[in-house]
Amino acid sequence: MDLRQGQCEACRKNAPRATPEERSLWIQQLPHWSVAQEQGVDHLVRVFTFANFTQALEFTLRVGRMADQQGHHPAILTEWGKVTVRWWTHILAGLHRNDYICAAKTELLYE
Amino acid sequence: MDLRQGQCEACRKNAPRATPEERSLWIQQLPHWSVAQEQGVDHLVRVFTFANFTQALEFTLRVGRMADQQGHHPAILTEWGKVTVRWWTHILAGLHRNDYICAAKTELLYE
Repeated sequence: MDLRQGQCEACRKNAPRATPEERSLWIQQLPHWSVAQEQGVDHLVRVFTFANFTQALEFTLRVGRMADQQGHHPAILTEWGKVTVRWWTHILAGLHRNDYICAAKTELLYE
Repeated sequence: MDLRQGQCEACRKNAPRATPEERSLWIQQLPHWSVAQEQGVDHLVRVFTFANFTQALEFTLRVGRMADQQGHHPAILTEWGKVTVRWWTHILAGLHRNDYICAAKTELLYE
């Protein structure tokens, strides 16, 4: 499965988290991303760099619009020359297939 | 001085930080803001709330455009229904008059 071609599905409370096998497999498609814990919850995280604030802000806007299209929403930290994107599934307090798909789509927006 | 009418000035390494007296005075114009330390550096911080992600993203864009106009740049964390804005002066590792001016202008953008 090419994550970049995936589409997010509506995520309910009883949806399955990504299994360890899925996580190992999918992260191979996301070499610049890592899994970091925040308040005990796993997040997919990447820092993107830019030449200035304006370019960082434009990227934030592109990621935000993609998120609205997918109906799944990250935390986006915009700073001078830098955007940090974090994907996770709030309702599952962890990582779902949707997060890997959205990370891959975020990567496409940077290319 | 009405902070909302101020304009940021170019800030050099030997520019003066806001004095305790100025901080006490200026924060009165910013009742929803607080000073928080991050890695030992004072920041002016406020969390703004919204009905959804799209409205939060639009506010981020407005704040970012104002920042570019002022030539002074915050950290903006965009999340579902919530935007956290942090102003500080990197080169001074602390708070300058510019930060209070930009916080007041951010407030105007929310009204």
